[in-house]
Amino acid sequence: MRAFEEQKRRAIERLQDKGADQEVEEVLQKINVLEDFFTTSSCSGRIALISLPEIGAKREARFIGKWHRPVKKEEVLEAISSAKSSRNGDVWFIAQSPIVHVACRTLEKATALLRIAIESGFKYSGIKAIAKHNGRVIVEIMSTERMDVPLASDDRMLCSEAHLDFILAKANIMLNRGKEKLKRFSMRLNELEEPFSR
Amino acid sequence: MRAFEEQKRRAIERLQDKGADQEVEEVLQKINVLEDFFTTSSCSGRIALISLPEIGAKREARFIGKWHRPVKKEEVLEAISSAKSSRNGDVWFIAQSPIVHVACRTLEKATALLRIAIESGFKYSGIKAIAKHNGRVIVEIMSTERMDVPLASDDRMLCSEAHLDFILAKANIMLNRGKEKLKRFSMRLNELEEPFSR
Repeated sequence: MRAFEEQKRRAIERLQDKGADQEVEEVLQKINVLEDFFTTSSCSGRIALISLPEIGAKREARFIGKWHRPVKKEEVLEAISSAKSSRNGDVWFIAQSPIVHVACRTLEKATALLRIAIESGFKYSGIKAIAKHNGRVIVEIMSTERMDVPLASDDRMLCSEAHLDFILAKANIMLNRGKEKLKRFSMRLNELEEPFSR
Repeated sequence: MRAFEEQKRRAIERLQDKGADQEVEEVLQKINVLEDFFTTSSCSGRIALISLPEIGAKREARFIGKWHRPVKKEEVLEAISSAKSSRNGDVWFIAQSPIVHVACRTLEKATALLRIAIESGFKYSGIKAIAKHNGRVIVEIMSTERMDVPLASDDRMLCSEAHLDFILAKANIMLNRGKEKLKRFSMRLNELEEPFSR
């Protein structure tokens, strides 16, 4: 199982290089001190605006705004208007739950983590992949909070200001709810500690 | 492993009792003839309107419209107006990808199914649970297509007709894309057949 240690060392280096959103840092630290786990990517939850030529053409999606905190209508309108005329396409408003990917040494460890994640409110969590050669398991931790609203078509804004106010109010509540779930999850992570290992 | 056969028998009975959406039937049949798999629930993808008191309060959510086919604006407006005054709450427009839950006899079988699902376009698929006593694995098959748009607050419609037209056009495209993925998945399921078992 040397490969696991080597992959973990590299993942921690990448994390130290690139950093992570503040609200998810404690969770990452608590996972990465455990011998049988390491995190490979994370986001504390975000609100974003993307421009894309057609649904699902994710490879061609372009972010025109991205926030890991509650946003104001003015910021959203400003981002849309600065992006205008640079390219045609639809503009979507999206709100996304926190997401954390964790590599686990064994399936047993992965299911223990998965249980805690689901019980902390991350109901969309699951095992995404199991490596054939060494049994390493990737757990994806995420929750159901999400919004995907098409706002504008070919530079034509279709959402009224009153409706945008409403959408933003809901998205900001979702964002905060995601951060609360991260705190709950962080507390519950104490259960995974190996009492005699350090 | 008698328990697996018994659970499968009951699941098939439930399916015969309740039926399933037409577009997902072929997939269910192809999975259920295989010895090591059975389906436990499914949806071919849908567009819906729900009324709910607050975000995430899913237990109190109430469907005021549900369609497994493309919808027209008039149908949506009609559903919202018939639901009015029955109770306060927000009305959300949602579009959901197809979803199929499959019980698999072993982890190896589950990962084979998972790979085919992901390669057919069901990118949000994953393993949701692994039973401790008999190793039975539940795979959830779903894709990324989704919309969640808050439309009305306390009986006040906030979405303009032009914006609703746009939202519906996108949702109807998503719905059709989900059905196409089901067809692709159905084709790929042939790879799971046990050539000498029947």
